[in-house]
Formats: sequence, C-alpha cells, structure tokens
Amino acid sequence: MSTDSTLDRLAAVLESRKPEHGGDPAKSYVACLFDKGDDAILKKIGEEATETVMAAKDARAAGMTEQGREKLVYEVADLWFHSMVLLARFDLTPADVVRELARREGMSGLEEKALRKVQAREDGQA
Amino acid sequence: MSTDSTLDRLAAVLESRKPEHGGDPAKSYVACLFDKGDDAILKKIGEEATETVMAAKDARAAGMTEQGREKLVYEVADLWFHSMVLLARFDLTPADVVRELARREGMSGLEEKALRKVQAREDGQA
Amino acid sequence: MSTDSTLDRLAAVLESRKPEHGGDPAKSYVACLFDKGDDAILKKIGEEATETVMAAKDARAAGMTEQGREKLVYEVADLWFHSMVLLARFDLTPADVVRELARREGMSGLEEKALRKVQAREDGQA
Amino acid sequence: MSTDSTLDRLAAVLESRKPEHGGDPAKSYVACLFDKGDDAILKKIGEEATETVMAAKDARAAGMTEQGREKLVYEVADLWFHSMVLLARFDLTPADVVRELARREGMSGLEEKALRKVQAREDGQA
Repeated sequence: MSTDSTLDRLAAVLESRKPEHGGDPAKSYVACLFDKGDDAILKKIGEEATETVMAAKDARAAGMTEQGREKLVYEVADLWFHSMVLLARFDLTPADVVRELARREGMSGLEEKALRKVQAREDGQA
Repeated sequence: MSTDSTLDRLAAVLESRKPEHGGDPAKSYVACLFDKGDDAILKKIGEEATETVMAAKDARAAGMTEQGREKLVYEVADLWFHSMVLLARFDLTPADVVRELARREGMSGLEEKALRKVQAREDGQA
Repeated sequence: MSTDSTLDRLAAVLESRKPEHGGDPAKSYVACLFDKGDDAILKKIGEEATETVMAAKDARAAGMTEQGREKLVYEVADLWFHSMVLLARFDLTPADVVRELARREGMSGLEEKALRKVQAREDGQA
Repeated sequence: MSTDSTLDRLAAVLESRKPEHGGDPAKSYVACLFDKGDDAILKKIGEEATETVMAAKDARAAGMTEQGREKLVYEVADLWFHSMVLLARFDLTPADVVRELARREGMSGLEEKALRKVQAREDGQA
C-alpha cells in the first residue's frame, strides 16, 4: 500500500463526509466537524500540534522507547488527519500540499535562503 | 509524480541532512535544525500550526480567494515539512504516519467512537 | 478591586482545589484538572492560545466591534486562567510571573537586545 | 510592589510604544511588533504557548528542580507579556482580563458547569 494511495483515498473519504455529499453529523466524526465549521477544525489543529510537542518531549524523556516513538507517530497522524479535514473544508487536498513540498525541493537555493535567516537571527542574539 | 514518491524522497533528503550522514549546519537549514536539537524543531511545530490557523482565518475573511487558499496550502506544507523533520529526528518516517492513518481507516467503528465523544461533550455543554 | 488582589485571590482558590487541600474532582473543574495531571493542563494552554489567535483574527475581520473585542478579552482570560492552574500545579504563583515581568522592565537595554534579534532576522530575509 | 501596579505600569509602557505615541520601531522591540502588525504578535502567542508547554515538560522530567521551575516562570512571563502586547494592539488592557477573571470567580455554578462538560466528555470516551 503506497503513501500516495492512502492519502488520496483518505481525502476521498473526507470529501464524502461533506454535507453536500450526504455526510451525516449524527453518524460521522468528520461530518460533525464540517457541520460545526472552521473554528472547530482550527481548534483541533492547535490541540494536535500541542499533543505532538508533548509526545516528542515524553519520548525523549523516556529514552526513545518503542512505546514513546509509537505515541509520537500517533500524534503526528492526528495532526495530519485534522490538517486534511481543514484542507477539504477549503476545497484543497493533500496532493496540493505534496505538490508544494515537491516544488520547494526543486527550487535551488531554498535551503540556503532559510539558512541565512537562521544565521542572521543567531548573530542578532550574540 | 505521486504523493508517495514525493514524501518518501523528501524523507530521504532529510535523512541525508543528519550530522552522521554528513549534513552541514553551515550549508543546510535542516542540518541546522538537527544541530540545534529537539526544542528548535518543536518550536517550529507550534509556530507553523499557529500560522496555519491564521492563514485559514485570512482565507475565509478574504472570501476564499485563490491567493488565500494558496497561502493556506503553503502553511500546511510548512507544518508537514517540520513534522517530517521531527519524525526524522526520532528515526521515524512519513510512511509510519501514513501507515497509522491507513490502520485507522480500516478500523470499523472508529469514527463512531470519536463521534460519541463529541456528542457527550455537547450534551455536557447544554 | 485591584488587579493584585484578584490574581492573588484567584491563586488562593486554585491552591484550595488541590487534592491535598481537599479539592474534589467530582465537584470542581480545577480539582478535576489537577487530578488528571500535567498533560490535561498543558493541552488547555495549547487550546486557549489557539482560541486567542482565532478571536483576534475574528475581531479584526469584524472591524474591531465591541463584541469582537470582548471575545478576545474572554479568550485571553481563559489563557491566563489555565496558565495559573499550570503555575499552581508546579507550586508557582502569578506573583512569580509578575515579579519576572517587573525584573525585565527594570533591566536596561532589554528591549534593545530583543530588537537587535528582530532586525538581524529581517536582514537575513532580505 | 503589587501585582496590580506592575501589570498596569507595564500596560502603560506598552501604550507608549505605539506609533501614535512616538514609539520608534528602530529603538523598541514592542514598537517593532506594533509596526509589523497583528500577525507578528499572534505568531508570538503561538510560539510562547509552545515554549511554556516545553518548559513544563522539562521541569517535570528534571524532577521539579529550582532551575526547571524558574524556566517555566520565564516562559509564562513571555506568554503574558505578548498577550499584553496583543491586548494593547486592540486597545484593551490587563485590567480588562483581570475584571473578566473576577467576574467568573463571582459567578456561582461556573466551575460546576465546566465540570459537567469534562465529565460528559469522559463518559463519551468510556
């Protein structure tokens, strides 16, 4: 099972949960999020980002155990899942995000520019 | 170009930026993040989640313009990118996250359970 | 009613909600947070920060209406309230935070140092 | 020095950093934030909330050392400081937030309502 087909298939499931495609807030968590609107989805982005930070801190403190690393994967999956609900809400797809990531990878000098920013920041702190 | 190959290829690039694989903090933004350590990466997760929320609010307020939606894609790409740097830091990959997402999709009753939580929450608010 | 007495009095109420002081998770929201532990409190910090950002975006988009500004005050109050629960959890008080703020105010050159960082960052982006 | 007078005095300093009161972005960090606008301030809210979560995790993992707890106070101070910059940006003050906190304290049944939500949530998870 490829990464591709999974994200695309999941995006199709999310699309089918929209009210205009018959999604029923009484039967589906995602349909319920769409029904509640932007703010409910955005709150989840903030929550899941915080939980990702906490899981990484816990995994490090526990000495990088298998359990700690699995928890981190679980939280990043939650973060990506709710990102995809947000994308669907704005009629966007994970393919749009991946295309943007590919575009950056292909842009020469991108990392160098980001790096100059970081170095300038550190010079300022010195 | 598939979603799959892009995320996997990007993960391979991130891996090559690790100090033990010759990544040079003076030349690469990602090598610089690895060199700074967990906290520098986790701060970026919090930052990019906040910027995603802001971009969604702006896109909605602007009436869902093309420009607003492109900005949202850009910020989600930043969030996913730094999530991938975090995964690499803990010797994990986007494939691990996608596998977790696929596992959930296959679990029957998952959405229903999440939904019960939301409904119980709302009953409590009533 | 002074700001002083309010924050200090609120801190005393939070202290009384700790299990060792008889706080009952079945009767008090704060006692319930203490009972659940660090992570429950930290999740609230992430949530309330996100809601503060959303309320500010909404207030601006609505043209700085009275209602929008009241919502922002409400969300910052939520953020400060849960910060105070976190402080209590670590046997700290709002007075400790205010003392730190006063210390900074008195440190000459502090703003200038922070400013140099920001300017260096911008030079890097240029 | 009271909690009250410190927050009020700090609010007055922030007010004086606004461009219309002569604040100079080239000389003051706060004037620089005002000059950059809402988004620069909101990004700081997200950043400082994340750093607060990280500091709490570190303090716990280090066994509640004096140093760990001081770091937590430092980060909460950063979060409150930038909350105050945000309030000033919207012509609001810490006194407005403290008034809202006092109002809640006086509302009977508030904690009980919040508690019912949490309990309902947990019933849903069971």
